[in-house]
Amino acid sequence: MLNIKIICVGKIREKATKDLLAEYEKRISKYAKLETIELEDEKIPANASPAIEEQVKIAESNKIIDKLNKFQNAHVCLLDLHGKEYSSEEYAKKIEDISTYSSSTIIFVIGGSLGMSQELLNYFQDKICFSKMTFPHQLMRLFLLEQTFRAFKIINNEVYHK
Amino acid sequence: MLNIKIICVGKIREKATKDLLAEYEKRISKYAKLETIELEDEKIPANASPAIEEQVKIAESNKIIDKLNKFQNAHVCLLDLHGKEYSSEEYAKKIEDISTYSSSTIIFVIGGSLGMSQELLNYFQDKICFSKMTFPHQLMRLFLLEQTFRAFKIINNEVYHK
Repeated sequence: MLNIKIICVGKIREKATKDLLAEYEKRISKYAKLETIELEDEKIPANASPAIEEQVKIAESNKIIDKLNKFQNAHVCLLDLHGKEYSSEEYAKKIEDISTYSSSTIIFVIGGSLGMSQELLNYFQDKICFSKMTFPHQLMRLFLLEQTFRAFKIINNEVYHK
Repeated sequence: MLNIKIICVGKIREKATKDLLAEYEKRISKYAKLETIELEDEKIPANASPAIEEQVKIAESNKIIDKLNKFQNAHVCLLDLHGKEYSSEEYAKKIEDISTYSSSTIIFVIGGSLGMSQELLNYFQDKICFSKMTFPHQLMRLFLLEQTFRAFKIINNEVYHK
């Protein structure tokens, strides 16, 4: 069974979002072993200067890099506004191809509210863009789970609920 | 105050999704008069033929057209996979420009699970694409509300919660 890990920054607090994520996690569990790793976000002071914000971004990204170093053979995919855009069918093909030819573990990385450091962005070539619009990271998790569930439905030629 | 109407097909059943939508509706109400018009979806028989699916799509789209005919002076924007993509800042500028130069009422249209008829798609030129990926219509409503709330934050130079 394919391993899917989601590395993200910050905890989800709202119950409604948590419930929705849990629902998609349950649906995906039929097709893959899913683990979500929530790293602690850094405190951003009110009216933080660009320099302070850069520090926060680097600190959070370094935590992500540390965590990624534990999974050397995994295929890493960063969720990035400047990444490649896929249709749902292309995204399904991508997951199928990675699991067939590349690795049995796919790690998706969702940065914190200030984004990812240049070091992290330079380190991994596979970057995917879900939308040209900026969304809060809790909704990005929802998009990722829904599309991943949809991808398994497409891969397995199953009808998705209308 | 700007009027925003969302015309969509089908009701939301899951409580978690309803709660999330209600939260964003509440946030937007500070900036605009928001109304969501849920049209009844057509029954799709199991194993429906392409011809039957086309009929359902046309019937649902005709209901949308009937409803739109009631708002002759509104600016209509269709959410369409083949529409134009915007960044969050560009989307904010779009809403600001429409409300300043075009109309005090913006209507966003989200089609049913089978999409929109060619007649409806041909009728309105303004089409917006939130993602190249296909998402369920209840999540499209969530994306639309979140980005619209974000747009008002951008227009008003307010800091968005991190």
